Amino acid sequence: MVPGNSAARCYFDWAATAIPDSPSGRAVPFGNPSSPYREGREAREVLEEARRRCAVVLGVKPETLYFTSGGTEANAIALHSNLLRRSGGRILASAAEHPSVGKNFEVLRRMGKETGLIPVESLGMVSPGGLKKILEKYGDSRFAAVMAVNNETGAVTDMAALRDVFRNRAGAPVHIHCDLVQAVGKIVPDIPGWDLDSASLSAHKIGGPRGVGILYLRRPVETVYAGGAQEGRVRPGTENTAGALALAEALENHALPEKVREARGPALRRFKKLIGGLGSMNRCVLIPPARGEEDDNFSPYILQAAFRGIPGEVMVRALDDSGFAVSTGSACSSASAGRPVLEAMGIEKELSLEGIRISQGWSTTDEETDLLLAAIEEILKFL
Amino acid sequence: MVPGNSAARCYFDWAATAIPDSPSGRAVPFGNPSSPYREGREAREVLEEARRRCAVVLGVKPETLYFTSGGTEANAIALHSNLLRRSGGRILASAAEHPSVGKNFEVLRRMGKETGLIPVESLGMVSPGGLKKILEKYGDSRFAAVMAVNNETGAVTDMAALRDVFRNRAGAPVHIHCDLVQAVGKIVPDIPGWDLDSASLSAHKIGGPRGVGILYLRRPVETVYAGGAQEGRVRPGTENTAGALALAEALENHALPEKVREARGPALRRFKKLIGGLGSMNRCVLIPPARGEEDDNFSPYILQAAFRGIPGEVMVRALDDSGFAVSTGSACSSASAGRPVLEAMGIEKELSLEGIRISQGWSTTDEETDLLLAAIEEILKFL
Repeated sequence: MVPGNSAARCYFDWAATAIPDSPSGRAVPFGNPSSPYREGREAREVLEEARRRCAVVLGVKPETLYFTSGGTEANAIALHSNLLRRSGGRILASAAEHPSVGKNFEVLRRMGKETGLIPVESLGMVSPGGLKKILEKYGDSRFAAVMAVNNETGAVTDMAALRDVFRNRAGAPVHIHCDLVQAVGKIVPDIPGWDLDSASLSAHKIGGPRGVGILYLRRPVETVYAGGAQEGRVRPGTENTAGALALAEALENHALPEKVREARGPALRRFKKLIGGLGSMNRCVLIPPARGEEDDNFSPYILQAAFRGIPGEVMVRALDDSGFAVSTGSACSSASAGRPVLEAMGIEKELSLEGIRISQGWSTTDEETDLLLAAIEEILKFL
Repeated sequence: MVPGNSAARCYFDWAATAIPDSPSGRAVPFGNPSSPYREGREAREVLEEARRRCAVVLGVKPETLYFTSGGTEANAIALHSNLLRRSGGRILASAAEHPSVGKNFEVLRRMGKETGLIPVESLGMVSPGGLKKILEKYGDSRFAAVMAVNNETGAVTDMAALRDVFRNRAGAPVHIHCDLVQAVGKIVPDIPGWDLDSASLSAHKIGGPRGVGILYLRRPVETVYAGGAQEGRVRPGTENTAGALALAEALENHALPEKVREARGPALRRFKKLIGGLGSMNRCVLIPPARGEEDDNFSPYILQAAFRGIPGEVMVRALDDSGFAVSTGSACSSASAGRPVLEAMGIEKELSLEGIRISQGWSTTDEETDLLLAAIEEILKFL
């Protein structure tokens, strides 16, 4: 249930933003972490403590983590570092990336960079075979962005398999950038094991506050948006100490491997019920249609489903009126026409426009899941 | 005095970050403002309320304000919009800009843009005459960044006079960008009256939280760091609703014209005492030396002073040990060698390295000012 609402509301749009954790209440020193005196040093200590705690959760060295203003900025810094890299080379991105990767990829192309699109399979993820073909086609590839978990369908990319394709290729290595925004807290990303060169995540998707995220960088890059010397010059601007600490707490609360595994069972159980229930409605089509009730190819937190004859926006509004928050696609794409990610999977346009995204979180209940199914059945009687 | 510290501490580095206001405690809807259902609409309402309240304080239309992650990002977006503008033309910046302008200016030059530096006078600000010469030299100028209040010296630029120079020039208009980060809450910036095309400000310099700022744009620009459609595509990324509301509150608390005028008298009185006291110490040199006790050319919140024979860092450390927080220059430049802003004013290198910045705020007291003077006198006996 949604906190602070008098009317009963069930929140099923955790992929847009998670219901936030209660703040820990720990006082954060107000000083500027770049200031040399006591107040500054106290703030610096908390900032570096936050970085170390994030590093433990993510299994990387603290000095490879840069606090950003969110997932979007983390993706933008990684992509635009190509503008200042001397070595050049082609930039690849999958066809199903979030706009914070996809739109920056377009900017790079407009600014004269060579680019290439990695197709996704009908299930919604990049396959090793598909990647191999693209790398063969574009021998000059030097950077590739592939997301770990798709924000519209929950499709999970086999990053370990892609790593082998990237690393077994002859020639100059490709920088692997992975958008982990929908992966962290839902699956256990393996930054070192996947041999990632950069990765991004966002606090507010895992119960932390708005306005803070992380860019992982194996090696520092030069950033287009420059300024002060904060965060190793990778992300200038006075450091958001309170945000960094809250992000560390959110990661510990929800993204430690044991926490992810612990939450996965109940999440799978609720989604099995949801998928089973939707499957019994004859106007409902899962997207992709091949998605199973318990399918390791998908995150048990994000589901895309279409209802024949009902535009997605109409279903979202009807559910809203009944007390349920679900969305069509990404909130970040809410102003865009069409569903480019679904179309990239080969979903026919009409069906894609009927898609809604149902996403759950750690505090979603079986009861809410039952209520959602009942509400959809009710709506289908009238629409 | 600094809150939450057992030992008595006097904070004189408000220009690095202000002592934060107590949060208003108002609950902010957690929804994603781009989501179409109730939780999203509630969040959107608060976001737009915050924008309207900021607009009232700044005397502009709400739709010209874009929430950013801070002053640095606001400056970066404005400067880098030159990369995507079709019209081209030379980019100017004053020689005394903050790194969030100055370093981005350097990036633009490295990326092949024509640039030009506007010199500052010995007092530290751009003069109408100096600007006129540069505009005559560079007839192809199309963008100029000039800060309103310098973050190291408090020098106040006569933006109304510069406006006349910009606007009386024949030929294509120059986009005027003004960094208001140290101006807001200290003087009353006049965005419409100064005919600004863009301007930046930061919440944490005026008692608000870290990680939020504003970019004013007379007309939208295209941004290099792209992503979702938030903030009119000028600043993508899930909106920081809580930060925006806190920024509106901080602006109302400290930046309404009557609040600025109300705080100015006591601030001037404290600075008159401080400048008088420092003037009586024969090893102290104000920077610039021509700065008077009550000098309208300077903000009564920022003071730069050098102590002959004592490197700035040593004085900062000695004062820290005595319970006072002061800095050398900008916290954002703390990793840089030298004092480029002071050198641009023609201050000799040795003196510039002896400079410290003393900056006060609305809760600074006469007593703290007396204590600071006494502490400096004590230190001068031993150093």
